[in-house]
Amino acid sequence: MVGTTATILTTISFVPQAYQVIKTKDTSGISLGMYIAFVLGVFLWIIHGIKIQDMNLIGANAITFVFASIILTYKIKYK
Amino acid sequence: MVGTTATILTTISFVPQAYQVIKTKDTSGISLGMYIAFVLGVFLWIIHGIKIQDMNLIGANAITFVFASIILTYKIKYK
Repeated sequence: MVGTTATILTTISFVPQAYQVIKTKDTSGISLGMYIAFVLGVFLWIIHGIKIQDMNLIGANAITFVFASIILTYKIKYK
Repeated sequence: MVGTTATILTTISFVPQAYQVIKTKDTSGISLGMYIAFVLGVFLWIIHGIKIQDMNLIGANAITFVFASIILTYKIKYK
């Protein structure tokens, strides 16, 4: 239960950030280094999830990957 | 190996973001909603780690908690 809530919170947390950058195109305070490392790390979590066949791990990280990638794309485009 | 690299990348990714907000105090592009949800989620990950006695989970999330909390504090202070 605590683990589930933790997963939901850390997964959906990137939604308001993605929404904000799409809406405002303001990425000045956002760290490029953070999102390069983070998107790569989340991608590796998906690979790890596939290897150990953990659907929850794959699903949560796939959602995070989509939103973190949007943020990274906007950061590169509107820096 | 993939899991370890994934853990390291997603954990350390918040270091450049924390460094940037401390240095520039520019948090305009950063989403308050993201960091409220994220810091709370990471805190619950630590609780979950304590419950299942997983030191790697506790350690990685404790590091993330410190840096994400710094970012959240700066976002509240310099919004």
